[in-house]
Amino acid sequence: MKPILYLSVAALLLAGSALAQTPSPTNLGRNAFPQVGKDGRVTFRVKAPDAPALTVNLGKDYPMTKDADGVWTATTDPQVEGFHYYSLKAGGLSFNDPAVHSYFGMGRWASAVEVPGAPDAAFYTPRQGVPQGAVRSVRFFSKVCGEWRRMYVYTPAGYELNPSARYPVLYLQHGGGEDETGWIYQGFADVILDNLVADGKAVPMIIVMVSGVAHPAGDPAADAFDQMVTEDVIPFVDARFRTLADRDHRAVAGLSWGAKQAYDLGLGYRNLFSWVGGFSGIIVIGEFRTRPAGYEDPEKFAAAYNGVFKDPAWFNANYHLVFIANGEAEGSHLKGMSGILKERGIDNVFYQSPRTAHEWLTWRRCLYEFAQRLFK
Amino acid sequence: MKPILYLSVAALLLAGSALAQTPSPTNLGRNAFPQVGKDGRVTFRVKAPDAPALTVNLGKDYPMTKDADGVWTATTDPQVEGFHYYSLKAGGLSFNDPAVHSYFGMGRWASAVEVPGAPDAAFYTPRQGVPQGAVRSVRFFSKVCGEWRRMYVYTPAGYELNPSARYPVLYLQHGGGEDETGWIYQGFADVILDNLVADGKAVPMIIVMVSGVAHPAGDPAADAFDQMVTEDVIPFVDARFRTLADRDHRAVAGLSWGAKQAYDLGLGYRNLFSWVGGFSGIIVIGEFRTRPAGYEDPEKFAAAYNGVFKDPAWFNANYHLVFIANGEAEGSHLKGMSGILKERGIDNVFYQSPRTAHEWLTWRRCLYEFAQRLFK
Repeated sequence: MKPILYLSVAALLLAGSALAQTPSPTNLGRNAFPQVGKDGRVTFRVKAPDAPALTVNLGKDYPMTKDADGVWTATTDPQVEGFHYYSLKAGGLSFNDPAVHSYFGMGRWASAVEVPGAPDAAFYTPRQGVPQGAVRSVRFFSKVCGEWRRMYVYTPAGYELNPSARYPVLYLQHGGGEDETGWIYQGFADVILDNLVADGKAVPMIIVMVSGVAHPAGDPAADAFDQMVTEDVIPFVDARFRTLADRDHRAVAGLSWGAKQAYDLGLGYRNLFSWVGGFSGIIVIGEFRTRPAGYEDPEKFAAAYNGVFKDPAWFNANYHLVFIANGEAEGSHLKGMSGILKERGIDNVFYQSPRTAHEWLTWRRCLYEFAQRLFK
Repeated sequence: MKPILYLSVAALLLAGSALAQTPSPTNLGRNAFPQVGKDGRVTFRVKAPDAPALTVNLGKDYPMTKDADGVWTATTDPQVEGFHYYSLKAGGLSFNDPAVHSYFGMGRWASAVEVPGAPDAAFYTPRQGVPQGAVRSVRFFSKVCGEWRRMYVYTPAGYELNPSARYPVLYLQHGGGEDETGWIYQGFADVILDNLVADGKAVPMIIVMVSGVAHPAGDPAADAFDQMVTEDVIPFVDARFRTLADRDHRAVAGLSWGAKQAYDLGLGYRNLFSWVGGFSGIIVIGEFRTRPAGYEDPEKFAAAYNGVFKDPAWFNANYHLVFIANGEAEGSHLKGMSGILKERGIDNVFYQSPRTAHEWLTWRRCLYEFAQRLFK
């Protein structure tokens, strides 16, 4: 009997594995759909008996089909593991799926699914017994922008138990179309840092997240991000929180468009920052393309960011870290950028997230890798 | 010349006043629409050239009309000042307006407009120079529910500057279809308390906000809210924050469905709470109707909540506050409930928000009034 029993169990496991669909972790309450199959295909269901047509867009359009009960269904191609924004479309409009949580992305509150299957998911999963930091929503008045704004601030576990301790600060930027909430709700930055600190792999640090969309008061067409951060945000944070308020203890990183902003701040304000990270984004010198044009021109390269790269020996002695990273599915151009910088004598670390695309699993991993190298 | 000048200015002011439309404070970025007129009418605009039809629902349906550029427009009836959820509707579906922020309400992430015009808006408006408390997003594991959950915790200005000070705690519940984010993003509880404390009108306190939707592990049909709060939330908060952990320093309040939950906790757990507030919601005794049936039956009344009302003298000596409130446009049934309780010897305070409906301006005012009476 034994071999048969073994076979049966194996067959059951196989059948279960092939058929298993699990609700997306982004579903509201106990909603059953969207569901994600073991193969990464996502199945959507929307009850809308009166809708003449319905489409789900997840990277591309998937027209939905309606059953006799007025329930529309579509199943996507296999998706790589991680976090993917999507929309429902009807009558020429794109909108949210009421079945899932909304996240600020794509310039609006957007729907998303989380495709499980990351072998390393433990690093961004809460664990019982791990001391927790706190994520604070803090209002501040920006004189540069002439308005009240909101920042998220992560303080590490122990911040309040050690009322005289001071901590280094990481300024961490979201991507285009997102806002200051992204690194918490999509990125799980608080969980990642809590776990890293508990495991002794990262130095306890404060993380400041602000919206990267900033206009000077009275001029909505102009950008004032650098000015807002350097004149409003950093002084506010250093006054409000127990920071180590010098360049040796101040880092900046960001993703995608936020990576470009992080490089602008980190390389452009050498008196303020000495640790810089860019996830899925570029250092712009001249007219950056796949192989950045400005990098080929020694004069442009030496002049960039007020000459920060002019003397590589000085740069390498004074910058503790330049961290360049992206997802494997995004291609090799950032690996190329890292290589060119090295050719030109600028030390940097390159990291690539296996399999993942221009999405939040990539950036969770980037933060996980980056944070372990900070302030050491 | 002088009289003519005066007339001209007056005419200009009148014209400006009649025509003035201002973008809703809930608009994303610098979006111009929705706009609110001085008369409280809200005008919506949505660009959707291919949509066959579009409707906006704000209390009722307003079919939109399309211009030659494919922009749909509708203007509502005058709305009372305050915060109003709304939806766009097309093809039998209700969904978000991508032009505005989303708020968790109506059981999903929902759109909303804020109709200005409250004469007392200063109490929920941030002021420069007011010391700020912090709003923290805190993960906790609920053994009762068998899952990780998130709470929002407001700690008052000074909490971190006074590392040995302990504070009273208000547990504050959202309404049906909302979640733990409501009192911050719709209710501005943090701003209201910051302002009150700065003006010396309220005692610095901690406010804990949890989702009122709680099911016991393994039984999604059953409710475990009381059990989760009393067994998981309160012990967690008292361990994690510097609280005054006794009934004299513990309050509970809520709005609408959350008011019912607050009464259940506040009256049902007399060993835990001594301050209770219900905003736009009822104390359920027997079969509550407009004039609550159970209140008429002395036995039911005396038996309710394990006999908490049985001895009014005991109740009045041991409960510091029962606060009952609603909006004027909601009708008189809660004023009636307050009166019946008084007839039966149960002290309570009744407050009514002028003009407002079953919406967040009512509840902001309720919190403003309630908080001033707490822990004194």
